[in-house]
Amino acid sequence: MTSSQNIYTTGQMEADPSPQETKGVKKNAVLMECVVLNGPIIDSDSGEKFVEEVFRILMNEVVYKATDVNEKVCEWKDPEQLKKLLDVNIKDIGEPHQKLLQLCQNSIKYSVKTSHPRFFNQLYGGMDHYSLAARFITEALNPSVYTYEVSPVFTLTEEAVLLKMMELLDWKEGDGIFSPGGSVSNMYAVNLARYKYCPDIKEHGLSSVPRLVMFTSEECHYSMKKAAAFLGIGTHNVYFVKADDQGKMIPEDLKKQVQNAKEEGAVPFLVVATSGTTVLGAFDPLDDIADICEEHKLWFHVDASWGGSALISRKYKKLLHGISRADSVAWNPHKMLMAGLQCCALLVKDNMDLLKRCHSAEASYLFQQDKFYDVRYDTGDKSIQCSRRADAFKFWMMWKALGTLGLEERVNRALALSKYLAKEIKKRDGFELIWEPEYANICFWYIPPSLRKMENKGPEYWQRLNQVPLFAWDVSFGTSAAML
Amino acid sequence: MTSSQNIYTTGQMEADPSPQETKGVKKNAVLMECVVLNGPIIDSDSGEKFVEEVFRILMNEVVYKATDVNEKVCEWKDPEQLKKLLDVNIKDIGEPHQKLLQLCQNSIKYSVKTSHPRFFNQLYGGMDHYSLAARFITEALNPSVYTYEVSPVFTLTEEAVLLKMMELLDWKEGDGIFSPGGSVSNMYAVNLARYKYCPDIKEHGLSSVPRLVMFTSEECHYSMKKAAAFLGIGTHNVYFVKADDQGKMIPEDLKKQVQNAKEEGAVPFLVVATSGTTVLGAFDPLDDIADICEEHKLWFHVDASWGGSALISRKYKKLLHGISRADSVAWNPHKMLMAGLQCCALLVKDNMDLLKRCHSAEASYLFQQDKFYDVRYDTGDKSIQCSRRADAFKFWMMWKALGTLGLEERVNRALALSKYLAKEIKKRDGFELIWEPEYANICFWYIPPSLRKMENKGPEYWQRLNQVPLFAWDVSFGTSAAML
Repeated sequence: MTSSQNIYTTGQMEADPSPQETKGVKKNAVLMECVVLNGPIIDSDSGEKFVEEVFRILMNEVVYKATDVNEKVCEWKDPEQLKKLLDVNIKDIGEPHQKLLQLCQNSIKYSVKTSHPRFFNQLYGGMDHYSLAARFITEALNPSVYTYEVSPVFTLTEEAVLLKMMELLDWKEGDGIFSPGGSVSNMYAVNLARYKYCPDIKEHGLSSVPRLVMFTSEECHYSMKKAAAFLGIGTHNVYFVKADDQGKMIPEDLKKQVQNAKEEGAVPFLVVATSGTTVLGAFDPLDDIADICEEHKLWFHVDASWGGSALISRKYKKLLHGISRADSVAWNPHKMLMAGLQCCALLVKDNMDLLKRCHSAEASYLFQQDKFYDVRYDTGDKSIQCSRRADAFKFWMMWKALGTLGLEERVNRALALSKYLAKEIKKRDGFELIWEPEYANICFWYIPPSLRKMENKGPEYWQRLNQVPLFAWDVSFGTSAAML
Repeated sequence: MTSSQNIYTTGQMEADPSPQETKGVKKNAVLMECVVLNGPIIDSDSGEKFVEEVFRILMNEVVYKATDVNEKVCEWKDPEQLKKLLDVNIKDIGEPHQKLLQLCQNSIKYSVKTSHPRFFNQLYGGMDHYSLAARFITEALNPSVYTYEVSPVFTLTEEAVLLKMMELLDWKEGDGIFSPGGSVSNMYAVNLARYKYCPDIKEHGLSSVPRLVMFTSEECHYSMKKAAAFLGIGTHNVYFVKADDQGKMIPEDLKKQVQNAKEEGAVPFLVVATSGTTVLGAFDPLDDIADICEEHKLWFHVDASWGGSALISRKYKKLLHGISRADSVAWNPHKMLMAGLQCCALLVKDNMDLLKRCHSAEASYLFQQDKFYDVRYDTGDKSIQCSRRADAFKFWMMWKALGTLGLEERVNRALALSKYLAKEIKKRDGFELIWEPEYANICFWYIPPSLRKMENKGPEYWQRLNQVPLFAWDVSFGTSAAML
């Protein structure tokens, strides 16, 4: 990026006054350094009117129109064009009210409608109104969840949701925290595993520790490499275990790799299984992996960011059989469950304050121990963040609205849709299903007419087919309207 | 936490139907595994009505009432009491519409009103309506900013804001990303500094690298320790440089400590200066620190999470003189500028893709290189996250609304208010200002009547005074109504 403009170039004052101008200063003004201290802080009337008007726009343009199958998913513009259309540059003088409303309109117009029934992408399954309403509440209240005293409601609703998620894991007890993404949840797990292996690393770092090695399948999410790099483990110390032709980790290969690492003089400390891989939607065999972890005393983390939602379905929870044996689990209700971005839980089976001991910095200005309530409700020392959003609240509200049975229906529906799509693909000419879906990822080829009649599927066939994208669709709840 | 309830206990169906019940199934129903695929996905009518009703509640209870000085900041309840009042437990069956509205009402009622003019706390300066409206838009659109194609508007508005921030740093070019908090921004800086020192660490980790040491003042934010622990550096390898009696880092001591670390055989790689310390609001002498960093070839990061906002004021930007020489800067517009949580920029002077090279995992399923637009707009590989919120958009909207001059007025007002408070404290009996504020943190003692007349301020005096909290108030924009 190259910054070019100068600030404070004099701009012409517009006829329609911009919002920063204060008006109606009191007669008994208190002045300090030329600032009227008891003047109006902000033009609240205009501001409130603006919020009301924007709300109407977004109800029409996003809640109603952008979920309508007859509307466009996206009004595509390339970057240079869009910069002009948005009038993206910031000026010295504020823009007038009408222009600001236009900016909002345009921002919506040129955005991708992620709740549209024809938007097929990672993460998205449609719009949940209960979650959305809760998100408006948290935006308006603007809390930070680090101490109970500033976030009583958001502390307790987070706890309620975490407890309910633990129940679904068949854990009797545990701990947890909402984090800004599955990638960050996975980083927490790496740090917990490392701390459990050797608590001294927190203080002394890795420079005098033998080489630590973690294991995950070659089909894992790329955040495992990011975690290893960020936490100082190093990407080469992520040993990728082979997956079978369905994308599931092969336990025999895990065993072998653990053995090899030990023979190399490295220290295995963590195995990450994936429940719902990114591309194939595969579920690693958790029970077999848990056996190996127990044998070698390795931390067992399950990245169920995508697949965790199956736990809420009595029919599909078997996909994650063995998850009760995990030491930690990442699970993102912002995916199939539709809680909205971001909503990501890290769950930890330890109930002896490991999460806190591993991440605390004991900042005395924030986490005083002599408060007038039980300070165990202060979550800040469990977190790598300081201020933290109330991400659990929208999930709590949605769960209250739908009940566990309503969420189960949501998951069952998504998985029925995926079966339906697979069936349709098999029926149609020019499409080739790669295999029967186990979850909501449907991988298939579109075979162009020129290739359909080739009998010898040799190198030439594959070379030409590879120029066509392989489709991996996440079929979730909201997609049915598009398909039927 | 202890999880106790069982799920799927049969609940009595309530008279008022809960939202998960689908109704009005089409005659030509398509069934798959007992799921009606072309039935209504969700009861949109009830959901939309709910969003409308919640919006009215929050406008009344949060936007109007919770910013009214005559209302309470907080209706305090202790945790056990509040759990009951909120009916926090989640059930199998969803709650009826009216009950859900009551849950929203109660969630607001028992929350702390962080935009209230009498709420004095870290982070908060009042409510900005333009930012709030933008936050509603992003919640409704639910974007993830990792590729231009799914987030065109949010990619470009983030870029526009970052460029404008760089201008205020007097940088000619640079790079940057919005992160989930100043703590995480500081972690990015540690990782960048380490990568710059030795790019191999990304792949090979720290186990075979000499002990790395970073330097920051004893008044720094506690996230520096968290960052060192999380990134595998170790908290003991954060060397705390002495601060003077105003809380500013002493450059002479920094020099000495860098020298000592080298003599110990450790490798200094990073100095973190603080612009606006957490408790005292002190600004480290950036120019002197930059000289030392240049001499020793150390990465120079400035944690201006709190103090960065002064850059927007021509009057106060001198507090950060020398910041143009920083290699990276953390700056949170969610604090004094009132953009709302979370809104945190990490700015990096390097414009040769260091941010990307340091953090990329090159996930081929997401960041294909053969797209139909300039893939340099895809920000995902700069980030440690995968899905990422559009945090910059609200700041962009607010900045468009107020202009740079309007934001400058906001900062000048906050700092005028802090001077006013200091003046008032000095005038009043029983209050003792600790020193003249340089920024918006006012540190003072309340002296109880029993201590006011003690002439000998010996150990007994201080022991008794220490039982009274020392007040460190962040006086920001919204506080004037409370003070005047």
